Amino acid sequence: MLSPIGVIRSEHIKPEQTPIQPVYAKGCQGQVDVFPEFSEGLCDLEGFSHIYLIYCFHKAGAAKLIVKPFLQDVNRGVFATRAPCRPNAIGVSIVKLLRREGRILHVEGIDVLDGTPLLDIKPYVSRFDRISSKRNGWQDEVNEKTARKKGKRKMIRRR
Amino acid sequence: MLSPIGVIRSEHIKPEQTPIQPVYAKGCQGQVDVFPEFSEGLCDLEGFSHIYLIYCFHKAGAAKLIVKPFLQDVNRGVFATRAPCRPNAIGVSIVKLLRREGRILHVEGIDVLDGTPLLDIKPYVSRFDRISSKRNGWQDEVNEKTARKKGKRKMIRRR
Repeated sequence: MLSPIGVIRSEHIKPEQTPIQPVYAKGCQGQVDVFPEFSEGLCDLEGFSHIYLIYCFHKAGAAKLIVKPFLQDVNRGVFATRAPCRPNAIGVSIVKLLRREGRILHVEGIDVLDGTPLLDIKPYVSRFDRISSKRNGWQDEVNEKTARKKGKRKMIRRR
Repeated sequence: MLSPIGVIRSEHIKPEQTPIQPVYAKGCQGQVDVFPEFSEGLCDLEGFSHIYLIYCFHKAGAAKLIVKPFLQDVNRGVFATRAPCRPNAIGVSIVKLLRREGRILHVEGIDVLDGTPLLDIKPYVSRFDRISSKRNGWQDEVNEKTARKKGKRKMIRRR
């Protein structure tokens, strides 16, 4: 049904060292290489400062329904987490679009493994997507300092 | 590769009357019916006030690379829009989670056609997803009053 429209290039080659979210991948630049047959669809994308990348977690392994999220050592339902090992291994990342050079997008805040198959790109639109969510479930139990420390992952390894 | 984990139920039965985004579907309630074999994965989701529904635009028709978006009568690259007729017909909607009853999620702000196959659910997490995007491309050319009027669609038809 679905087939890749491109490939994501990044500095992240090991899953266990890859930041868990774009907010913890500040300074990590990457390229989105959209295949030539889809390049026309990228027109006007450069007007947006942020975009959604929708991709396949191609290294996720077998799906689990109960997982321990990266940020908390407690079992949670997989749909209440962003863990890769989901029944349909679809990932969504909101990254900063630095510039477009033809069919290559230069992005920042990339939390995606090098070589990841790209499925779709959508613009981040403030009027649609910037939600005032009142409750963030178990995430509200994790303080921001802990989240930043754990979420970057690569930084921890380098010490 | 992918197969549905559930089905989305809504009051929307005609594509041309369906609101184009959750922000224009205020008051539209729906149910997300997750198949029994995946219900365990819903644990803890009820703690989140908003969730992402990731689904298949099953009535989208043939993909196009250049489209006229609903909100503006100008040709745009499909990846700079949220139009359904994309190379991979994946839709993403951020809806309000009213409550969970076992494997049924009651949601508000549903902009999805009745019978839509569900692929994934993720929690909306403010610290990850509430982005201060500086530029919103051609969307910045559409004023909010026009967007609201056009985006609801059903309301226009009822007059």
